[in-house]
Amino acid sequence: MKQDLDALMESANLDALLVSGPATRNPAMFYFTGNVHVGYGDLVKLRGQEPVLFCNPMEREEAARTGLQTRNLAEYRYQDLLKQAGNDHAQATALRYQKMFTDLGLTAGRVSIYGLQDAARSYEVFKALQALMPEIEIVGEMKDPVLLQARETKDEQELEQIRQMGAITVEIVGKTAAFLQSHKVRDGVLVKDDGQPLTIGEVKRKIDLWAIERGVENPHGVIFAIGRDAGVPHSTGNPEDVLALGKTIVFDIFLQQPGGGYHYDFTRTWCLGFAPEKDQKLYDDVRQVFDRLMNEEIEAGMSFSALQERTCELFEEQGHATIRQDPLIEEGYVHSIGHGLGLDIHEPPFARPPEVMLKPGVVVTIEPGLYYPGSGMGVRIEDTVFIHPDGRIEVVAEYPHDLVLQIREN
Amino acid sequence: MKQDLDALMESANLDALLVSGPATRNPAMFYFTGNVHVGYGDLVKLRGQEPVLFCNPMEREEAARTGLQTRNLAEYRYQDLLKQAGNDHAQATALRYQKMFTDLGLTAGRVSIYGLQDAARSYEVFKALQALMPEIEIVGEMKDPVLLQARETKDEQELEQIRQMGAITVEIVGKTAAFLQSHKVRDGVLVKDDGQPLTIGEVKRKIDLWAIERGVENPHGVIFAIGRDAGVPHSTGNPEDVLALGKTIVFDIFLQQPGGGYHYDFTRTWCLGFAPEKDQKLYDDVRQVFDRLMNEEIEAGMSFSALQERTCELFEEQGHATIRQDPLIEEGYVHSIGHGLGLDIHEPPFARPPEVMLKPGVVVTIEPGLYYPGSGMGVRIEDTVFIHPDGRIEVVAEYPHDLVLQIREN
Repeated sequence: MKQDLDALMESANLDALLVSGPATRNPAMFYFTGNVHVGYGDLVKLRGQEPVLFCNPMEREEAARTGLQTRNLAEYRYQDLLKQAGNDHAQATALRYQKMFTDLGLTAGRVSIYGLQDAARSYEVFKALQALMPEIEIVGEMKDPVLLQARETKDEQELEQIRQMGAITVEIVGKTAAFLQSHKVRDGVLVKDDGQPLTIGEVKRKIDLWAIERGVENPHGVIFAIGRDAGVPHSTGNPEDVLALGKTIVFDIFLQQPGGGYHYDFTRTWCLGFAPEKDQKLYDDVRQVFDRLMNEEIEAGMSFSALQERTCELFEEQGHATIRQDPLIEEGYVHSIGHGLGLDIHEPPFARPPEVMLKPGVVVTIEPGLYYPGSGMGVRIEDTVFIHPDGRIEVVAEYPHDLVLQIREN
Repeated sequence: MKQDLDALMESANLDALLVSGPATRNPAMFYFTGNVHVGYGDLVKLRGQEPVLFCNPMEREEAARTGLQTRNLAEYRYQDLLKQAGNDHAQATALRYQKMFTDLGLTAGRVSIYGLQDAARSYEVFKALQALMPEIEIVGEMKDPVLLQARETKDEQELEQIRQMGAITVEIVGKTAAFLQSHKVRDGVLVKDDGQPLTIGEVKRKIDLWAIERGVENPHGVIFAIGRDAGVPHSTGNPEDVLALGKTIVFDIFLQQPGGGYHYDFTRTWCLGFAPEKDQKLYDDVRQVFDRLMNEEIEAGMSFSALQERTCELFEEQGHATIRQDPLIEEGYVHSIGHGLGLDIHEPPFARPPEVMLKPGVVVTIEPGLYYPGSGMGVRIEDTVFIHPDGRIEVVAEYPHDLVLQIREN
C-alpha cells in the first residue's frame, strides 16, 4: 500500500518517482490524486518525502482538493524554455523537468517514470532529459514496477472504495435478476409487454442506466453471454440474442468509480426458469470447486499460482481438461483462477508465473469456470475477496450463487 | 484526412507509422480501427501500403471487424523472446518489433511512434529497439505529428460520425431545456414537485442519463455553471447550486461516441425566466460578435489565429478587455475563439500561434464569450462548423441561440 512506497523504493534502489499525465483514467496518477479535474500534472515523489504535484494554474483549485502539496507549472515559463531549446519541444520539456527536479533538490539518483502518455512524448522527452542530466538515471520499470507493488495491497481507504463498488455491483445484479423475472415467457423466451422478445442488448442498456443512476462507470461493458457464447470466456454476448429459458447465461460485471477509480469484479451464471441436466451438472462441478477453494484452499500468504494448480487438479479430478495440461484448449477449465483488482481491472497479483504470494491486504477475484461452447454452455462463478491482515478471507460483497433464476410461466 | 497519410509521411520523411495500445480510448489507434474490443494491438503502416494490425489471437474476430489486414502477435512467441533477452521485457518486446518489422519488409528508414501507453514501456522498449535496429530511426514527433495532420481534416465517414453526435447533442440540449421548463418557480428558483429546489447536480445527472439512453459517452462531464461560475470559463458548475431565475447559465456539452470515438462540442447561455439588463447587454455583445464571425468573418483557407485577432478587435470595439491585450486577464474575452475537434475534444487546428489555416475539411468550434465573474455573469455561444471543400461554412447541428428560456410563473 501507499505507506510502503518508501521501503519499496529503497528495495528497488529508486530515489524518486515521476508520474505524468491527467489525474483521471490514468491509474498511476489517480493513485495519488483521486478523482479531480486535473488535465495534466507531473507528480514527483522523492524517497522519504511527501509527493509534490506540479500543475497548471487554471487547475490549481482542483489540484488543491487532492490534499497534495502543489506547485505551479507556469512558473517554469515554457515559452522561454522553448526558445532556449531552439523550438525543440522535447528539449524544452526536458529543461523544465531539470528545473523542477533541481527545485526539489533532486540532482542525482535513479528516477522511475509512470503514467499513460503519448508514446512519442515519453520516448523523446525522457531521452532528452537523460542526456541533459547524466547524473540521474531515468528508469522505466518493465517488471514489477514499484507503484504496482505498492498498489498490490490496499489500505483502509482503498478498501472502502472497493466495498462501495461491491455494494453497488450486487445492487445492480439484484435489479438485473428482478428485471428478467418481471418478464413473461412465450415459446421458451422472455418477452416484453408488447410480446416482442427481450434481447441481451436491452438488458445491457438497463445495466448501463442503473450504473449511471448510481454514479459509477462501466467503461469495459458487461459480459452477458448465453448458450454457446457463455462457453467462450471472452465473448461479451450478442446484443440481438434473446433470453431463452434453460440455457446458461454468464453475467460478468466490472464497474468502476467515475474518473477511472476503483473497480469491482463479479460473475454469476444463471439459467432462466430451469436448468437442463447437463447444465446443472456443469454448474455443480464449478460450484463444488468454488466452495472448496473459498472454504478450504485459499489462505493468506499462499502462492497464487499454487491456487491455480490446485484448481486445475480439482477440475481434472472431475474429469475436465485444464489449461495446465494444454495451454491451447478451448473446452474445460481454460483460464486463470483470478487476478488482483483496484484502479486497473486486472492488476497484480496474478495467478501465473512468476510465483507470487497472496499477501495480507490484497483484493483478488476467485473465478473458477468451465466452458463447453460445443455443447452450448459455460459456467463461471466469481467473487472478489479481501485478505485481511489477520488472514481472514472476506467476500467483499455477498450475493447468492444460485444457478436457476425462477421465472413465472404464464 | 486518412487518404493524405502517404503524402504527409513523404513530407515528413517517414517510412512507417507504428501505433500501439488498445483500440478504445486511444485516438491514434481508434483512427484506424474504430470501436472494437481490441485490448492491445500494434498497427504498422508502411508508406504507400495499407496498415497491418498485429493482435492477440483471442481478439482476432474483433480485430477482423476493423476491415484491416491482421496478423497474429502470438506467432512471435514472446516467452521464447524473453528467454533470448535474458528475461529483459524491454529487450524481448524490441526483439518482437524487430521481427514484425522484418516480416513486413521494414528494415531501414524512419519510423514514427504513436499511441497512449505507459511511459516506462515507451521509453525502454523504443530505446532498446533503436539500439537493436540502428538502420532504422525511431521518431517521436513532438510537433505537428503526421497523424494529427491527417486527422485535422475529416473525410465523409468521419463527418457522418460527427453529424450523428451533433444531432444527439442538440436533442439532449432540447430535453434539458424542456426539463428546466417543466419545473415551477418558488422564491425565484426552480423547484421540484416536492417543493425542494432543483439543483445543478440533478440537471447534470439527467443529462448523463439521456446520454446513456442514446448510447453515447460523457467522459469529461458537462459544464453547467450559473452566475459567478458562468463567469469562470473552466468552472464546471457547483452541483449544489440551485437554478435561480435571471442569472446567466453557461451550458457547454461535449459528448463522445462510445469507446473513445468522435466528439461534438456545443455551448448555449441561458437566463431562466428573464434576463436582467446587464446580462442581456453582455449576451447581445457576444451574440453580435458570434453572428458577425459566422456570417462575415470566417472563411475557408483563412488563418485561424487571424480569426482570433478579429474576435479580439470586435470585443475591444465594444469596450471589453481581451486576452491579446493581457494574457492574464480574468474579465472580458479571456480565451481562444475555437479549436478543431474529432477523436480528441481539442485537436488541431488551434487558433493560436504558430499560424494555421482553416483548411477545407476541418471541423472547428466557434465560441466567443465574455466573462465577468465579479459581476456574477458570463456568456458563451458555441457552434461546431464544418468547412466544406467548396468553402461553404456549415453549422453541423443547428439549435436556437436565444438567451431567455421561458419559465411559467405560477
